[in-house]
Amino acid sequence: MSKTIEFYFDFSSPYGYLASLRIQEIADKHQRTVDWQPILLGAIFKVSGQAPLTTFPLKGDYAIMDFQRSAREVELPYSHPKNFPIATVAAARSIWWMKEHTDSTIQAKTGDLVQAYFKAYYVDGKDISDADVVLDVAAAQGIDKDTLSIALQEPSVKDRLKLAVNAAIEKKVFGSPMMIVDGESFWGNDRIEQLDRWLSRGGW
Amino acid sequence: MSKTIEFYFDFSSPYGYLASLRIQEIADKHQRTVDWQPILLGAIFKVSGQAPLTTFPLKGDYAIMDFQRSAREVELPYSHPKNFPIATVAAARSIWWMKEHTDSTIQAKTGDLVQAYFKAYYVDGKDISDADVVLDVAAAQGIDKDTLSIALQEPSVKDRLKLAVNAAIEKKVFGSPMMIVDGESFWGNDRIEQLDRWLSRGGW
Repeated sequence: MSKTIEFYFDFSSPYGYLASLRIQEIADKHQRTVDWQPILLGAIFKVSGQAPLTTFPLKGDYAIMDFQRSAREVELPYSHPKNFPIATVAAARSIWWMKEHTDSTIQAKTGDLVQAYFKAYYVDGKDISDADVVLDVAAAQGIDKDTLSIALQEPSVKDRLKLAVNAAIEKKVFGSPMMIVDGESFWGNDRIEQLDRWLSRGGW
Repeated sequence: MSKTIEFYFDFSSPYGYLASLRIQEIADKHQRTVDWQPILLGAIFKVSGQAPLTTFPLKGDYAIMDFQRSAREVELPYSHPKNFPIATVAAARSIWWMKEHTDSTIQAKTGDLVQAYFKAYYVDGKDISDADVVLDVAAAQGIDKDTLSIALQEPSVKDRLKLAVNAAIEKKVFGSPMMIVDGESFWGNDRIEQLDRWLSRGGW
């Protein structure tokens, strides 16, 4: 099994979205796989005493400007959602359900569905806090809607996400995106280049 | 008069320290001067609803690790101070006093004294919240101790710093370092490279 880049993110995180589109290239370059780890920042913020960026005076305005400027720099589309931030439980649960699915054809679509949810929210203006929207986006990626709809209500799937959030807190994940390589944490879309240098140099 | 890079910082900010050692090179590259703007994050945090990084669970531990890792990457010395964060009123006042001094030989030492205070705190382990330490550090840079000691108590000098903090808030400065070029803000030591690209490309 190849080494991974653990990629922790909340679907409601603009910087998570931007980094999600760039992390695979870094992983490929260093012969690693991306381990997609959707989490819920709301639950983590209760532990860390944080709150969504955009809720703060001064910092909030900068953040909304910076989401867009950061996207423009790397020529990625970004349209700040009307409804922001949102609850991303359904989207996150579906990824955990897929990621550890016994059917490898479903499991193999995990990365594509991560991208599809992000695109739905940050490019197409769809509100992925709505479970029906999540089901539609998944269906467009070839996931059976009824099967996923049932899965999202299963206690084991709900528990899997809770477990993931708690495991992330154990690893001191406090933001999105947070990338962990060989136990070393890097927080933020603006640390992608630093992570790349870290892997190239084998640390410093 | 050449164009500037406005460089807002608190002497108690590790990322401000690291960026202070790199910003001159970026400024030189783009034929700009560095406009040193010491501010007080404590006063700004009252407006922005923020608090020092290291006071937050999870995020605080990461921050202390990251101060050191960020310094190591660019081979700058960094020793996390025992007393952290600290009040930096005396150091900030002294910079404002020098920066607009009618004696050009005093004014010309502004940048050097910024570096000297940062070095005292982050390299030599001196507590620059102590006004006597500030006077000693300034004296070592050729500033008359008695003159500065009196200046630091002058209402006009105290008011100058207050004015600077309020002006920074007007410009939506909420952190340290924050760099403004031609009205465009960049927040964080990890945005130095982005600022460099912005100046090279003339924006995007």
